[in-house]
Amino acid sequence: MSFTLNEGIEILERTPVTLEHFLTGLSKGWIECNEGDGTWNAIQVVDHLNEGEKHNWIPRLKMIFQEGEHAVFPVFDRDSHLNGNASGTLAEKLQEFATLRSRNINMLNELLTQHENALDRTGVHPAFGTVTARELISTWVVHDLTHLSQIVRVFSKRYAEDVGPWQEYLGVLK
Amino acid sequence: MSFTLNEGIEILERTPVTLEHFLTGLSKGWIECNEGDGTWNAIQVVDHLNEGEKHNWIPRLKMIFQEGEHAVFPVFDRDSHLNGNASGTLAEKLQEFATLRSRNINMLNELLTQHENALDRTGVHPAFGTVTARELISTWVVHDLTHLSQIVRVFSKRYAEDVGPWQEYLGVLK
Repeated sequence: MSFTLNEGIEILERTPVTLEHFLTGLSKGWIECNEGDGTWNAIQVVDHLNEGEKHNWIPRLKMIFQEGEHAVFPVFDRDSHLNGNASGTLAEKLQEFATLRSRNINMLNELLTQHENALDRTGVHPAFGTVTARELISTWVVHDLTHLSQIVRVFSKRYAEDVGPWQEYLGVLK
Repeated sequence: MSFTLNEGIEILERTPVTLEHFLTGLSKGWIECNEGDGTWNAIQVVDHLNEGEKHNWIPRLKMIFQEGEHAVFPVFDRDSHLNGNASGTLAEKLQEFATLRSRNINMLNELLTQHENALDRTGVHPAFGTVTARELISTWVVHDLTHLSQIVRVFSKRYAEDVGPWQEYLGVLK
């Protein structure tokens, strides 16, 4: 096991600013490309991250402290950002992500200092059953990384043919 | 085929600033972790990117314009950054990357405007044979993305066990 709260927060606080510098100002060719029908482009990934900030991570952590194993987390709809409610430019969505994330990191620190043995407290996931606060927060971190990785993969595939014979050397295309 | 020079440069110019915001200030636990013996940590990836800026992309592009198919590119040693010559802190290495990359994008623009049908000009790769300038530049872009993806994957795997049952949902861990 590797998780520590400080190191986890290091990633959580860097994701918005990393995405801001990676994505802001890119052509539509990049930010609107996806991996085919039913897959997400970079804008939709940012919408999904914002949904998670509003409805997933902190609400579930609060349930762990308030309900423990007496209630099951509500199901988080991973496609909820596709309902068309998320308006605004990508720059605005990234700004919203930064604001939500900053507020949520403050809330995370507050919740963890209010409860003893906070990281070992448990809740009930609708699919997995018992999970700990430590697992939830670790997942929040890796969830950021999985979607950063997704955006990078989508972009890479756009040039899969353009690289010609170099395709063989480029791990991200495999 | 998707490559356009302007869009390719959009990625090339963002990679240093993206890595700077993603990596600067991270604990040793992150920047020194790798995927096991013989694999690279984030610092080594940045060293490798710097080697490419010095010895791979622009030198090969120059060979295309100067030699065409009359000479074979020298082999680029993908492990040359492991010889211990790369000193300095990660912040210094990232600053070096930004400086080298900025200079190389200027050189790229200069070389392409100096030659007619520049993107269609060809050179000889030691393993693949004939390659075009367009393929070389596309590869430069995807090479950035492949190493960004690598760093993200290395970080993710660090928490592969910490996420507990969520492992199933997190694509980057697969």
